[in-house]
Amino acid sequence: MPVADARGRFAQARVARLATVRPDGRPHIVPIVFALDGDLLYTIVDAKPKLGPDLIRLRNIGAEPRVSLLVDHYADDWQALWWVRADGIATVVESGTPREVAIHLLLEKYRQYDGWATPFGAAVVVRIDRWSSWSFT
Amino acid sequence: MPVADARGRFAQARVARLATVRPDGRPHIVPIVFALDGDLLYTIVDAKPKLGPDLIRLRNIGAEPRVSLLVDHYADDWQALWWVRADGIATVVESGTPREVAIHLLLEKYRQYDGWATPFGAAVVVRIDRWSSWSFT
Repeated sequence: MPVADARGRFAQARVARLATVRPDGRPHIVPIVFALDGDLLYTIVDAKPKLGPDLIRLRNIGAEPRVSLLVDHYADDWQALWWVRADGIATVVESGTPREVAIHLLLEKYRQYDGWATPFGAAVVVRIDRWSSWSFT
Repeated sequence: MPVADARGRFAQARVARLATVRPDGRPHIVPIVFALDGDLLYTIVDAKPKLGPDLIRLRNIGAEPRVSLLVDHYADDWQALWWVRADGIATVVESGTPREVAIHLLLEKYRQYDGWATPFGAAVVVRIDRWSSWSFT
């Protein structure tokens, strides 16, 4: 599909999956909520993760900033299947304008953040340099 | 959640995402249909892929067999969110019993394969050595 369509489908999805590479060379994968602005993708972790998948993704990106993100649509009617992948370079942003943009865009997209008890931690900003996509039909 | 629950939720999902590492060190991610039998996960590609994501995943596994697989459940009610990740070692199986097992299990799980015009290609068998999971509640 054309890149504009791929980007549009990706942007509208509520969840994507973020694949990073661990320092020992294994892949790591987690679901994320995110907001897309053109070729910039924003996501954010909870405040001060000390353990668990939030910290793992931040450490992985620190050592290997090349990441891959996927949005896919599954249906039992396989003619309706499609997916869009975004490859790019991730940066962990602890503070400053890009993190404020991330929070703003995420609050706008996800009403679930209203009254969110957990303060936001670091943002991850991905500059997407390649869109790939597939659809059955 | 207990490993048995994680494995059970994963097994019942219709789609998972497979993360591999490319020879140049970047992560790669694609959605897959799959069947699970205990700690063995089976998936299969179309016959003789010469290009595209099918071939990429097989090449990646050939060079780096450590893979990560994810099943996630998204809902606008975030209290219903959960995911299960399976890490393990993948093997590409061009022919023989494990490939027959893969085809059998996939035909059993997915009626969509009935009358499938594209013959099956190589199977990928993943021996899962670690289950990880998360749920909001």
